Amino acid sequence: MNNLLIERIIENALIEDMPFGDITTDSIFTGDETSEAVFMAKEEGVIAGLFVAEMVFKKIDGGICFEKISSEGEIVTAGTIIAKVSGKSASLLKGERVALNLLQRMCGIATKTRGFAEKLESSGAVIADTRKTTPGLRILEKYAVRTGGGTNHRFSLSDAVMIKDNHIKAAGGIKSAVEKVRKGIPHTTTIEVETSNLSEVSEAVEAGADIIMLDNMDRETIIKAVAIIGKKASVEVSGNVTENNILDKAIEGIDIISSGALTHSVKAMDISMKFI
Amino acid sequence: MNNLLIERIIENALIEDMPFGDITTDSIFTGDETSEAVFMAKEEGVIAGLFVAEMVFKKIDGGICFEKISSEGEIVTAGTIIAKVSGKSASLLKGERVALNLLQRMCGIATKTRGFAEKLESSGAVIADTRKTTPGLRILEKYAVRTGGGTNHRFSLSDAVMIKDNHIKAAGGIKSAVEKVRKGIPHTTTIEVETSNLSEVSEAVEAGADIIMLDNMDRETIIKAVAIIGKKASVEVSGNVTENNILDKAIEGIDIISSGALTHSVKAMDISMKFI
Amino acid sequence: MNNLLIERIIENALIEDMPFGDITTDSIFTGDETSEAVFMAKEEGVIAGLFVAEMVFKKIDGGICFEKISSEGEIVTAGTIIAKVSGKSASLLKGERVALNLLQRMCGIATKTRGFAEKLESSGAVIADTRKTTPGLRILEKYAVRTGGGTNHRFSLSDAVMIKDNHIKAAGGIKSAVEKVRKGIPHTTTIEVETSNLSEVSEAVEAGADIIMLDNMDRETIIKAVAIIGKKASVEVSGNVTENNILDKAIEGIDIISSGALTHSVKAMDISMKFI
Amino acid sequence: MNNLLIERIIENALIEDMPFGDITTDSIFTGDETSEAVFMAKEEGVIAGLFVAEMVFKKIDGGICFEKISSEGEIVTAGTIIAKVSGKSASLLKGERVALNLLQRMCGIATKTRGFAEKLESSGAVIADTRKTTPGLRILEKYAVRTGGGTNHRFSLSDAVMIKDNHIKAAGGIKSAVEKVRKGIPHTTTIEVETSNLSEVSEAVEAGADIIMLDNMDRETIIKAVAIIGKKASVEVSGNVTENNILDKAIEGIDIISSGALTHSVKAMDISMKFI
Amino acid sequence: MNNLLIERIIENALIEDMPFGDITTDSIFTGDETSEAVFMAKEEGVIAGLFVAEMVFKKIDGGICFEKISSEGEIVTAGTIIAKVSGKSASLLKGERVALNLLQRMCGIATKTRGFAEKLESSGAVIADTRKTTPGLRILEKYAVRTGGGTNHRFSLSDAVMIKDNHIKAAGGIKSAVEKVRKGIPHTTTIEVETSNLSEVSEAVEAGADIIMLDNMDRETIIKAVAIIGKKASVEVSGNVTENNILDKAIEGIDIISSGALTHSVKAMDISMKFI
Amino acid sequence: MNNLLIERIIENALIEDMPFGDITTDSIFTGDETSEAVFMAKEEGVIAGLFVAEMVFKKIDGGICFEKISSEGEIVTAGTIIAKVSGKSASLLKGERVALNLLQRMCGIATKTRGFAEKLESSGAVIADTRKTTPGLRILEKYAVRTGGGTNHRFSLSDAVMIKDNHIKAAGGIKSAVEKVRKGIPHTTTIEVETSNLSEVSEAVEAGADIIMLDNMDRETIIKAVAIIGKKASVEVSGNVTENNILDKAIEGIDIISSGALTHSVKAMDISMKFI
Repeated sequence: MNNLLIERIIENALIEDMPFGDITTDSIFTGDETSEAVFMAKEEGVIAGLFVAEMVFKKIDGGICFEKISSEGEIVTAGTIIAKVSGKSASLLKGERVALNLLQRMCGIATKTRGFAEKLESSGAVIADTRKTTPGLRILEKYAVRTGGGTNHRFSLSDAVMIKDNHIKAAGGIKSAVEKVRKGIPHTTTIEVETSNLSEVSEAVEAGADIIMLDNMDRETIIKAVAIIGKKASVEVSGNVTENNILDKAIEGIDIISSGALTHSVKAMDISMKFI
Repeated sequence: MNNLLIERIIENALIEDMPFGDITTDSIFTGDETSEAVFMAKEEGVIAGLFVAEMVFKKIDGGICFEKISSEGEIVTAGTIIAKVSGKSASLLKGERVALNLLQRMCGIATKTRGFAEKLESSGAVIADTRKTTPGLRILEKYAVRTGGGTNHRFSLSDAVMIKDNHIKAAGGIKSAVEKVRKGIPHTTTIEVETSNLSEVSEAVEAGADIIMLDNMDRETIIKAVAIIGKKASVEVSGNVTENNILDKAIEGIDIISSGALTHSVKAMDISMKFI
Repeated sequence: MNNLLIERIIENALIEDMPFGDITTDSIFTGDETSEAVFMAKEEGVIAGLFVAEMVFKKIDGGICFEKISSEGEIVTAGTIIAKVSGKSASLLKGERVALNLLQRMCGIATKTRGFAEKLESSGAVIADTRKTTPGLRILEKYAVRTGGGTNHRFSLSDAVMIKDNHIKAAGGIKSAVEKVRKGIPHTTTIEVETSNLSEVSEAVEAGADIIMLDNMDRETIIKAVAIIGKKASVEVSGNVTENNILDKAIEGIDIISSGALTHSVKAMDISMKFI
Repeated sequence: MNNLLIERIIENALIEDMPFGDITTDSIFTGDETSEAVFMAKEEGVIAGLFVAEMVFKKIDGGICFEKISSEGEIVTAGTIIAKVSGKSASLLKGERVALNLLQRMCGIATKTRGFAEKLESSGAVIADTRKTTPGLRILEKYAVRTGGGTNHRFSLSDAVMIKDNHIKAAGGIKSAVEKVRKGIPHTTTIEVETSNLSEVSEAVEAGADIIMLDNMDRETIIKAVAIIGKKASVEVSGNVTENNILDKAIEGIDIISSGALTHSVKAMDISMKFI
Repeated sequence: MNNLLIERIIENALIEDMPFGDITTDSIFTGDETSEAVFMAKEEGVIAGLFVAEMVFKKIDGGICFEKISSEGEIVTAGTIIAKVSGKSASLLKGERVALNLLQRMCGIATKTRGFAEKLESSGAVIADTRKTTPGLRILEKYAVRTGGGTNHRFSLSDAVMIKDNHIKAAGGIKSAVEKVRKGIPHTTTIEVETSNLSEVSEAVEAGADIIMLDNMDRETIIKAVAIIGKKASVEVSGNVTENNILDKAIEGIDIISSGALTHSVKAMDISMKFI
Repeated sequence: MNNLLIERIIENALIEDMPFGDITTDSIFTGDETSEAVFMAKEEGVIAGLFVAEMVFKKIDGGICFEKISSEGEIVTAGTIIAKVSGKSASLLKGERVALNLLQRMCGIATKTRGFAEKLESSGAVIADTRKTTPGLRILEKYAVRTGGGTNHRFSLSDAVMIKDNHIKAAGGIKSAVEKVRKGIPHTTTIEVETSNLSEVSEAVEAGADIIMLDNMDRETIIKAVAIIGKKASVEVSGNVTENNILDKAIEGIDIISSGALTHSVKAMDISMKFI
């Protein structure tokens, strides 16, 4: 991870939440009072981001002590104390909401990912995220996916190629698109082609795509596509993946199943911070 | 709204998504090609944030033309074309994901809010959000709540007072807490006290709280609390509010029902951008 | 307070003052010399912002030791040593001007505020600031006003409503303006209406304004306005308030007297930093 | 000037004043209304910064039209309309306060400077500012001083050398300090030495200082110092300069009289923005 | 490319070069004068970055007109006019140095790259850059390498894996390192292993590396390594590559030859901006 | 120096190099491993910027220990260990490239400068840099020039005047240009006039220029120019200065010889960071 980026996220969040300070706390506390609080999971889930919560408090007050009790990726049950935090009461109160907002979202993503990942355990496929992340939080959300047992798709438009229909049209065909791209990109970079039917799949194989995405295909078409590809490329399945239908798509020969919902439609994990 | 803040959000999002450019598009397009695309709702929902999507494209390329077809707050059905965008193909492709990530989240929030708001229509209460927003996106998420028919709770720790149990403990009681705060805050600012039982409610009334929050109380206790308050303060109900149980809490005398889930646990509305 | 914001102010100020370093100090000092210096008040005044001066030095050099001798809000006489600072000479010299520029301005504001506040001591009114603060320094200037015994008016355009003549015209009357606003704002937010004559005062009362500002009214009109309002709203007097005329305006029934001059026309308190 | 810096100042100021938008204006205006307003001087003064006011509105809304009527440096009387602004009402209301806060301060500085400058007109000296400017606004305040007929002292610690007592002590004398500095700085840079008595003046002359500051000396000592310097360096007088005593210090042979009060203790010029 | 990033680079550069404006130009020009100037190559070289020079002037003054005469990647001879620029004289003077500093460096990199690329023309290898770029300018320098006929190595530590000796030691061998990495990275990402002898080459092949770097090997070892690899991975040669020795290293079977000198040791191309 | 600026440079560089973390290191290291590494000069050169390398590591990880062995300005031979660094292996690997990129460039500049400076040792002239620095790194590059034994020319367009042909044309002659400038600039600022022939030199002397630059003149013309100037101004020679021809230009009476190549065409000094 790059902590400097995470610190920027936290700094922006704290300024967003306190453009002129915490008027309640600043009016009541002298600044000398100290407290201790616990973070408790109020439902079962996967822990991700305790170090981010810690960074929130440290950003406000270097003297805060944050003790992680659960470890990243751990599945905890309702009632588990996952961390303790102590120090100046005013600092704890100022950081509480931002710390929870980040932590609950990250745990929510990890938990959702784990649900998908567990379904795939006996298959050869892994669950992957997409670029459908919350603007500004991608580094944290991609981390949460990994922590929940998923794998990351490309981080951004800069680190891998995804050739879609508009690129294909502009280039005059899949082969031409792949060729043009190959010339312009680092030799370290792979090329994925998004296909929506079997003839495109064939073209993508011939064009030498490194990864072929089968977009919104039904089970039978997926099976045929895998046969056409014949291990000449990695195979990714995408489109309307849910916990219910994921096993249908986890056909032998599929390497990756990707789902935007891992990050764009998340239930925050219920976690409380209680002063003790 | 403050567009300067929204432009910062967008700029950060685009840099996050293209730390070294869009290597696919940059390799294939000459930069002269133009396209037109439509934004289509793929499920029913409430539109919020088309102007943000427009700003994303304009930030990349001032020459992009974005035509809003649906209006903010409009309920659209699956299949509705909500906006058109045209201009340089490369610019459209570079902005697509960030525009959708923001728009789908905002529409998701508006849609969820509307669901709650409709339930409350014949009650005297309104649905309100909380500070449980996505770090960095609060200004957009609070807007989406309003667009969906909800009302906003305080924007931040700076613009209203919320006295919670830790403040009360530190101050030595609700009355003392309210008094201390009253001295330190603008005369334009209101004081809300969070209560968890009826004796606290009584104390809050005596202390002159402007708003009293009934936190996690059952229906019967809420009814008694309303009676105790007797219109001497606004009354807010909070804690585990769902679409299913919200009418139970919308007792006469309740002014506001607040729910963090409006913003922390949102299903992105399904919207596609299709080139035509 | 939100220290992250104050650190940004300080960082910008130090970069403004040293775009390429302190060429005098960097040429003469080896970096190993240490010194001690005192901050001395050279005239009577109210201390505000010693912690900001401390933050300036710490930003340059974490090893600087800053000892506050006076406390915030204390009235000191000419000759009082209000703080001591010690550490690397070069760091002290680099921070001196920025620390003093901030401290002297904050003490100047606190001192001016105290002058107004003392006049009002036996009245029921308090002196309040406005949004006429120095761009970029509002959080510090509002703090200085509080430290000098004043109260803050709204922090920004976001945290309270002030309906002025243009809003009234656009809305088609005070009543309509208040109604429109009430729908769009958090339930935690109050509405103030600016009035310039008694009929507007009456309208504002009827519209249910929380606070009514009497703008530039003479003493007799103020008295009548107070009678009209009859405790149904808080009453604020504004317009050309000076230390000389403030008692004339502090009529019974007036809650707040606000003055932009507290922050827009300030004499910096004379404070020196002397090496010893 | 460097407009990019001024745009940063303005952007920060507008975000400071609207962390979550202008809730009054956003609730009342549809966004289509347009208005026209005039900026009127309500007292005599020197105009400085109309272009900054213009930039504030343009930053909010590129469609605003701002017409400067007075010119920079012009002395206007009470009642003069100095600029007109027209466009969307909501944009005008959002920019009003920040535009005025900057403009009134800049005009205040220009006006104060002109008062000092006029006193010096028949002398050989000019009035200069110092580094005692408002943190974050130095580029604007130094401009206002020039517009009022003053000259600027160094802009920052980077662009000219000022050797003070602590530098002298550390270097072991004025001569040694000047020599050390001369080696470390650009050949384009001048060296000023601050002196507090005649023997230091002599030393500074011998050391080859380009400018010698006579700090807090009485009239007689100043006269002797000028004689000692004998045109071998520029001569600056500093310390407790007021409009009343400035002519006393403007002895023949003095080139510059500097005063921190030009920027640290300023009365904002009274200017209103009225909708018409 | 991502223009938002380039605009940040330019904005920082202009603020660096004008912390308080261009005091020469601001003192002489009224602001109304206009001029025309030409950019002329004063030596042979490859053009890269004219659009960046254009952005510099547009950032200062939207009214500047910049006409590109040469095209990106074009080889021009001494004396060629590569662009014309016209508009306000003051704006042209303020942008001149920053525009040239960026343009000359980019053309210098493109020219150097072309020299290497031409040597490799009849080989099967391409010349690639490294991460040894100027901090803050990587996006521009990588573009210049492409424009000069080179290919890019990975953009950053985030977009491709490079396993070096320290990683190997920590992981307990190449195989283990590759396995650990494979689990943690996007499926779109390739793995390169840096090897310094033939046994490491064998290990890397067995571990399934996508790319194998032969670091600082002599010609004979390279030949043996290529044989061992046997097309099972891409082959990169690195270490002390110069225009003189590059053909020695361009052995059949080598895909990429990388050189840090393309960006870390560059002669700026001599280009002047002359007013006409 | 102003460390806050250097920290911004470093922060940007680290974010540029790790937009989503170091995927190799993050996959292999647990975070607990520690290492020690040495920085070794692999060729002779002048050390400049070890403190910057230290700041890079500290920015990533406050627990890193960095021990400088060589001192700034020291000439080291190939094989010299110039610094040691120890701490968490992952932190060392993440900082390595950025630290080296900055350090190698700074040492390269210092080394090149020293080459020029040594040639001038027995002359009365000193070697100076220009504004032809790498955008964003000027503060570091100017420091490296000083460390190599050179002197700095003006830092920016704000801290000294340089009147060039376009200014002269616009002002209507050198005399008029100097006069106009003198009125607009701080009294602490010097004026340099760029001349290209002897009549311009004469004019510049008459106009009272503080420094006269002889631009691209041949040896004989330079000799005549020096005679014309007759010590009435500092004399700077500029234009196509190389290590070979510099002594030709170092005529008696010349004070400064400036060369853009010191910073715009630099060979990075070869320095390695090796884990031990």
